[in-house]
Amino acid sequence: MSEPLFKSLVIVGLGLIGSSVARALKDRAGDKIGKIGLYDAQPEVRQRCQSLGLGDEICEDLSQAVSQADGVMFCVPVGANASLAQSIGPHLKAGTIVTDVGSVKQSFIRDVGSWLPEGVHLVPGHPVAGTEHSGPDAGFGALFQDRWCILTPPSNTDSQAIARVSALWEIMGANVEIMEAQHHDLVLAVTSHLPHLIAYTIVGTASDLETVTEKECVKFAAGGFRDFTRIAASDPVMWRDIFLNNREAALEILGRFTEDLFALQRAIRWGEGETLEALFQRTRKIRRDVIDAKQA
Amino acid sequence: MSEPLFKSLVIVGLGLIGSSVARALKDRAGDKIGKIGLYDAQPEVRQRCQSLGLGDEICEDLSQAVSQADGVMFCVPVGANASLAQSIGPHLKAGTIVTDVGSVKQSFIRDVGSWLPEGVHLVPGHPVAGTEHSGPDAGFGALFQDRWCILTPPSNTDSQAIARVSALWEIMGANVEIMEAQHHDLVLAVTSHLPHLIAYTIVGTASDLETVTEKECVKFAAGGFRDFTRIAASDPVMWRDIFLNNREAALEILGRFTEDLFALQRAIRWGEGETLEALFQRTRKIRRDVIDAKQA
Repeated sequence: MSEPLFKSLVIVGLGLIGSSVARALKDRAGDKIGKIGLYDAQPEVRQRCQSLGLGDEICEDLSQAVSQADGVMFCVPVGANASLAQSIGPHLKAGTIVTDVGSVKQSFIRDVGSWLPEGVHLVPGHPVAGTEHSGPDAGFGALFQDRWCILTPPSNTDSQAIARVSALWEIMGANVEIMEAQHHDLVLAVTSHLPHLIAYTIVGTASDLETVTEKECVKFAAGGFRDFTRIAASDPVMWRDIFLNNREAALEILGRFTEDLFALQRAIRWGEGETLEALFQRTRKIRRDVIDAKQA
Repeated sequence: MSEPLFKSLVIVGLGLIGSSVARALKDRAGDKIGKIGLYDAQPEVRQRCQSLGLGDEICEDLSQAVSQADGVMFCVPVGANASLAQSIGPHLKAGTIVTDVGSVKQSFIRDVGSWLPEGVHLVPGHPVAGTEHSGPDAGFGALFQDRWCILTPPSNTDSQAIARVSALWEIMGANVEIMEAQHHDLVLAVTSHLPHLIAYTIVGTASDLETVTEKECVKFAAGGFRDFTRIAASDPVMWRDIFLNNREAALEILGRFTEDLFALQRAIRWGEGETLEALFQRTRKIRRDVIDAKQA
């Protein structure tokens, strides 16, 4: 029998993503993972995962658990990375791989890197997958199937460590892409952070109007609004942390968006139908590309 | 046997909505509709509807068809209403009801009303339902089930005519709401027109960036972007016409949205996490209301 990929993998943070990783590995890893330990800072979440039968062990003592692990995966809101790294850093042994699932990668490297002892490998990861639901009950094992997981290892990262984290995601059905952390943060600002920011804003705007009631917005949501409410139902703390930690990229992309929106606003004001139609034709094509790429 | 609701109903425009009405009525109307005639300005669309077996009759001569109808439903892009009304107006007989399915109601009344002969009833309608797909193949009979259809009859409209159009939508499974046309246009600017405008913009912005390729946006679309590409795949001509014909309400709501977006932008720039989280908590609640209202 070949060596397992990880003898002991500890997942910290058991929300939608962490609990989905636990499920996906249980379903698919076989003997490639020795033991899956689970930890969450909230006792009631640990208890719930126990009831759900997730993982091989619910860890009550995180320091002890990580000291015996060869893999630790951070699945917490990105704003919690620094304090988590600070608290577990001293207990990690050389050779252990620390990875994560967060939506911002430069801040993970910045917040976690300096707390890791010599010989611990840092392999930042981000599975581009999710739903608007949160918590351990929302997770499911097929969440990462045919989705991309982006790894952003710093340039000096041990190649074996990268290969092991890649293999971990491939077990869960994901395709792996390696990317610079800075570029990741810009790409995700476009494809994920801006859409969420816009959705939160539009739902907020709708509910603040005096001339149209919130009840009317809800009642007639099927005209497009409902899709925005879905996105705007995503975990508030997680998303707060994403915007605070990917500020520069989010603001840059937001600036571009606002510029384009003003141009469109002007086209509406001046009745420039051709400008509107040309854009609407162009965006339709991109939808077809998304469908062809099986990311719809 | 009681009198049918319409002895002869002619549907003009056989895209997603028109063909869905044809299907829904065939599935559900029984003998409540005498005959359903179908017309589309494009011969290939008429042919396609013939092949699909939609309606009781594909009309080749629209003037003749409407002259024998007691109900005519406009299912064309709102920019085409005026010329359609002008061409069929002279052929309509007193007592006939003219209705529609368009997303803008003040412009329908303005563009169509003056072309109708004395005694023809104008009952503007708007089923708040749809998908991002277009054309007669995209339609389906359950599209209006449990959705709202808003009627915006001018204040002097014959109440029997309103009741007949209401009954028509109820046959198709819709709930009917009566509303002032002006208020309708504002409500829909919020719940439908702004979301579409934003989605078109964001997809356009993403595809224009130099630092992130269109291919990357497509590849990593699962982070939220994909939902926007879906909305931004809606029919370009239909949406061009909506913005041109609901300009004032669209610009008003857009102004409010931009204001809110700037406030959020500022919160990100200054690291005001509490402001962000408070909004994100609030919008999450609205999602629950949409789900409870069965409009998710």
